[in-house]
Amino acid sequence: MKVFVIGIGLIGGSFALDLKSVMKKVEIYGIDENDDHLEKALDLGLIDHKANLEDLKDADLVYLAIPVDASLEVLPKILDIVNDNCVVTDAGSTKEHLCKKVSEHPKRRNYLAGHPISGTEFSGPTAALHGLFKNKTNIICEVEKTAFKLQERALEVFQAIGMRIRYMDPVSHDRHIAYVSHLSHISSFMLGKTVLEKEKNERDIFDLAGSGFASTVRLAKSSPAMWTPIFNQNKKNVMETLDEYISNLKHFRKLMEDDNFEEVFSEMERTNHIREVLNGINQNEEIKLQENGK
Amino acid sequence: MKVFVIGIGLIGGSFALDLKSVMKKVEIYGIDENDDHLEKALDLGLIDHKANLEDLKDADLVYLAIPVDASLEVLPKILDIVNDNCVVTDAGSTKEHLCKKVSEHPKRRNYLAGHPISGTEFSGPTAALHGLFKNKTNIICEVEKTAFKLQERALEVFQAIGMRIRYMDPVSHDRHIAYVSHLSHISSFMLGKTVLEKEKNERDIFDLAGSGFASTVRLAKSSPAMWTPIFNQNKKNVMETLDEYISNLKHFRKLMEDDNFEEVFSEMERTNHIREVLNGINQNEEIKLQENGK
Repeated sequence: MKVFVIGIGLIGGSFALDLKSVMKKVEIYGIDENDDHLEKALDLGLIDHKANLEDLKDADLVYLAIPVDASLEVLPKILDIVNDNCVVTDAGSTKEHLCKKVSEHPKRRNYLAGHPISGTEFSGPTAALHGLFKNKTNIICEVEKTAFKLQERALEVFQAIGMRIRYMDPVSHDRHIAYVSHLSHISSFMLGKTVLEKEKNERDIFDLAGSGFASTVRLAKSSPAMWTPIFNQNKKNVMETLDEYISNLKHFRKLMEDDNFEEVFSEMERTNHIREVLNGINQNEEIKLQENGK
Repeated sequence: MKVFVIGIGLIGGSFALDLKSVMKKVEIYGIDENDDHLEKALDLGLIDHKANLEDLKDADLVYLAIPVDASLEVLPKILDIVNDNCVVTDAGSTKEHLCKKVSEHPKRRNYLAGHPISGTEFSGPTAALHGLFKNKTNIICEVEKTAFKLQERALEVFQAIGMRIRYMDPVSHDRHIAYVSHLSHISSFMLGKTVLEKEKNERDIFDLAGSGFASTVRLAKSSPAMWTPIFNQNKKNVMETLDEYISNLKHFRKLMEDDNFEEVFSEMERTNHIREVLNGINQNEEIKLQENGK
């Protein structure tokens, strides 16, 4: 199987790594604007060959893992080039715009819209990790618009690298993901900003910050080049989540101002319920491990 | 040495565990309102004996690790009871009120105000961990008000369990810690609240939430009984951090509303500097490891 990975960074690189470890007859071709990244990916053994867009005519599977603004430009071109038996899937964190963009494309049936819920705060080919997708959810949108045999091939690959599948329409996807992913990134970036502005003496941050601060501010290390177009494409939903978040913070501040610490306690106690939700995430992973007999 | 730990939860329990592993001749007495916790602490071997406040007359060192509102009531009573050669130290996350409360106590010289920057989101004696304090900072306030020989004894113990020491006045402590610790907890609690309110179907949170969400929302599992009095005692500083945080979030929202994604990018890029700050924290730990010859 000839697999082309476009964008050989954290996600594309990890996909290539895992694919090589689970499939015997796979040849991985890398395409990237950044030639240093391509060379690094060759060195690291993430890809077998460097390639260009025109080589896509021979592809069996294309994995598109580039910033979501670039995907809007590149996906139609990919579909123009690939043959009728090639499946093209992607890893973008927004799905509505991209699905709309190719809705009338004559090769729409060759595209399977995806979003793997996996990643780290790092980027580039050196950030690629073995097992990044294991027991993680891949959200598939508009599966009915993809040719049955082609989506089947993509799903086999996703399952081979350990992913769970969840189906969702693109509009719901973008609305939900604004809450459970995009908002977390903004809350973390703005927390980092607030502390950096105040603590001009970084020595104070070093000495006083514990693992709690490191955990809440971790996502503020993420790549602006990846996240800016996500916030742009999901603007309406993200602004809604921000409004609710800001309103909750203001309410908490008001309770403090009014010395209503009984209600401050209750707010936190109710939110402690997130423990069970996070345990649920872990349990899901355990169930999946058992199902896989691992 | 007879050590009395008052409040045998995550912090008190971990302190007892580590002390037993580094000091040969130490007997640990546990005092706790909650008799179940005391029994559990005995079972787990965190403490050697159960005790009461009146037994403190025989103590060489007292470690106070209870919620900060309770400390205000209990610390003066402890100082009333202990002998002239006993050092009493604590782990509270606010220092100004507590230091004021005992400033005129005839045994003020027996008290050393401390705040270890360590912990997890869990609580109770079963949450106690070996090595919780290793390479972590213990902030000491008003060291000049503690009898020299007594602070020396406490410092030997802190260093034996691997802590770094940083000196600070109580007012500065409470101001700095509002930024690097207390604000993180509120940002995390309100993020959890926002998502729980929206995602009534928890299945959606399970499937869509990745490690990023889990990381930013981790502190929302923390104990309301511990955190409510902290926010109360540090109200002025915490409200100031909240005002700045909310203002930064509103500014980010305004940039999005105005389609100024160039500046959205720049905001995130500037905040990426937190990478070096967090690396600084890690490097500090490595330096300390080298200093210790480990």
